[in-house]
Amino acid sequence: MNELALVLNAGSSSLKFAVFDADGAGDWPLAARGTIEAIGAAAKVSVRNGSGASLPAGALPGTLRDAGEALQYVFDWLSRSFTGARLIGVGHRVVHGGPRFAGPALVTREVLEELRALVPFAPLHQPYNLAGIEAVAQQRRDVPQVACFDTSFHRTLPAVAKLLPLPAEVCRGGLERYGFHGLSYEYIAGVLPEVAPDIARGRVIVAHLGNGASLCALRAGVSIENTFSFTALDGLCMGTRPGALDPGVVLYLFQTLRMSAADVEKLLYERSGLLGISGVSNDMRALLASREPCAALALEYFVYRVTQALGALTAVLGGLDALVFTAGIGENSPVIRRRICERCAWLGIELDEGANSGNADRISARGSRVSVWKIPTNEELMIARHTGRLLPRGSAPA
Amino acid sequence: MNELALVLNAGSSSLKFAVFDADGAGDWPLAARGTIEAIGAAAKVSVRNGSGASLPAGALPGTLRDAGEALQYVFDWLSRSFTGARLIGVGHRVVHGGPRFAGPALVTREVLEELRALVPFAPLHQPYNLAGIEAVAQQRRDVPQVACFDTSFHRTLPAVAKLLPLPAEVCRGGLERYGFHGLSYEYIAGVLPEVAPDIARGRVIVAHLGNGASLCALRAGVSIENTFSFTALDGLCMGTRPGALDPGVVLYLFQTLRMSAADVEKLLYERSGLLGISGVSNDMRALLASREPCAALALEYFVYRVTQALGALTAVLGGLDALVFTAGIGENSPVIRRRICERCAWLGIELDEGANSGNADRISARGSRVSVWKIPTNEELMIARHTGRLLPRGSAPA
Repeated sequence: MNELALVLNAGSSSLKFAVFDADGAGDWPLAARGTIEAIGAAAKVSVRNGSGASLPAGALPGTLRDAGEALQYVFDWLSRSFTGARLIGVGHRVVHGGPRFAGPALVTREVLEELRALVPFAPLHQPYNLAGIEAVAQQRRDVPQVACFDTSFHRTLPAVAKLLPLPAEVCRGGLERYGFHGLSYEYIAGVLPEVAPDIARGRVIVAHLGNGASLCALRAGVSIENTFSFTALDGLCMGTRPGALDPGVVLYLFQTLRMSAADVEKLLYERSGLLGISGVSNDMRALLASREPCAALALEYFVYRVTQALGALTAVLGGLDALVFTAGIGENSPVIRRRICERCAWLGIELDEGANSGNADRISARGSRVSVWKIPTNEELMIARHTGRLLPRGSAPA
Repeated sequence: MNELALVLNAGSSSLKFAVFDADGAGDWPLAARGTIEAIGAAAKVSVRNGSGASLPAGALPGTLRDAGEALQYVFDWLSRSFTGARLIGVGHRVVHGGPRFAGPALVTREVLEELRALVPFAPLHQPYNLAGIEAVAQQRRDVPQVACFDTSFHRTLPAVAKLLPLPAEVCRGGLERYGFHGLSYEYIAGVLPEVAPDIARGRVIVAHLGNGASLCALRAGVSIENTFSFTALDGLCMGTRPGALDPGVVLYLFQTLRMSAADVEKLLYERSGLLGISGVSNDMRALLASREPCAALALEYFVYRVTQALGALTAVLGGLDALVFTAGIGENSPVIRRRICERCAWLGIELDEGANSGNADRISARGSRVSVWKIPTNEELMIARHTGRLLPRGSAPA
């Protein structure tokens, strides 16, 4: 390998990275993928190659205090593992692109400043995403960086779907519905014409069901609605987030229960959703294995909310041609897919039980009016593609 | 008239009253209806007879300082207008019946105490509803009173629909989804077997669209879901309330915009929804007449949200047999009904344009898979019925 590209997803105490072999044209092959966890404490690292086999991660240099030190480790590991290969670009997953970024952006000082102004929109994610960009700039000043946003793909939402029902003077300053998981939906919209050409131009709902979960309504591959909103708290019930919640409940937490903003934030981002209802776990597999009645209730609630949201987004599309499951739960849980689809028989969905339990690509029965699919998502590859496209001439691949 | 019953709806600065002729068996006829507004300031009163014709209201005794003085005026007016008639009972609309009241209750000291404990659940309504009960108790100690709750009809919601996706220890103390407009839905569910016997046992959505707005999903006349939640802020866009709103937006109002709880409460209850979006009015008629682009956007948003919620509740019902419009907008706005139904063609809804603009009872086309109805609601009559049924023996009508 002569050239490589790095994709980073920097969180509050974790750094996920993916290494792409940037020698050829077309989609770059994944060369390695790693995760550093518990940065700031007893950091742990794991690395795998493109096929998923474990790679030697090397010893961590004591504690990794911050994103900068974690990144230094990654660069050291890259030099050892891909000797002589030149880093031609770094692509970052950035949660919020605000009203302006309808696509990825080559990072400049001005872009970085604009992104910093969006921190109040996503205080738990944006600062860490930007810290990753800043750390790269310090350690590899000459390597071009590309910011890829979870919001960009939804900038096509019509005005009525972007609207928050508050006075204009309150919304001034960017308070509107953005939507997230955009890189995942963009990837799925990109592969649909190959996987299912018949429906790619039609009315499709993509269900990105992971620890974070949302639905996206696609008309001819374009996002016209999603279940997230201004923040990634809204919509479906998630691992630790509630999804849609009566605004009066939040008011009650402040006004009657006298909770602080920090406590409400922690409650809504970390203690609610599947974990809050079940008291057992935020992990779908643990809930499916549990015999606790509250675990069963959490699963029922998860399915109930997905079912309702499928009805709501079908209403936006004016009917449904296909449903696509993706992400951790969507790709790997036939039980959850089945429970959702059973409740959607009224929409014209009929599952092929064998195809579903066998994790086939197409999991609906032959006569199903709405076809149902399982398509693995690949946000890292989407970021790698954007990075390749936006690299300045000369550093771009052949 | 020998006996009369009074129905009261006491608000923060208003008192609505309805007088029923309680002489006969069966439904009592409405004898008069009145509204006192601006209690505490320059109070105004208007009274009409059962047919809607204005009645002389008599001079107000200067300022009406509170519910007690407003009620004193009503009792004086009753004695003058229905000389010699005996007041056999007073029925109250009370917004919140909490987890326990699955039906109306004869007011006792214990009941009143339970209802007082629910004030934090509905701080803008419950205290005034109870002040009305207390004022009657002071001025007519011997007259039995009945409390009728907006929540009771929805106590049939299954556990999964009552659930809020928060930790159990936060929900302890009654934090759950209740639902409102229950007296209206109970009335509609009661008349459906007469108006539309074919669908009364089926899957029906009732759209109560007024200044407050919600949907209720009925299966065989029983409420299994509605768009309100813990409070009456959730669900559809309303005159001054937002309806469903990303919980992250409420957090942002507190955390980033540094608004106080009182300001957030005022924003969400009084300044949002149609008024907030349009900047013009909370009144559907004014918006329909306006040429402001923001007024058109507010209308579009209202319809968009109703359409989505119809999809979500149809998913809960597993299909739809009939849609019923009721309340101010639902009964009187063919334009809004048409715009909603047009977007629901995918559900099998086809409007009969003539029947709709002519305000017929059945407004769907003959071949429409889902039948559509316009049925006037009557919450006062519902309260009168409950009151009649719960009066202690001896005071009940023949």
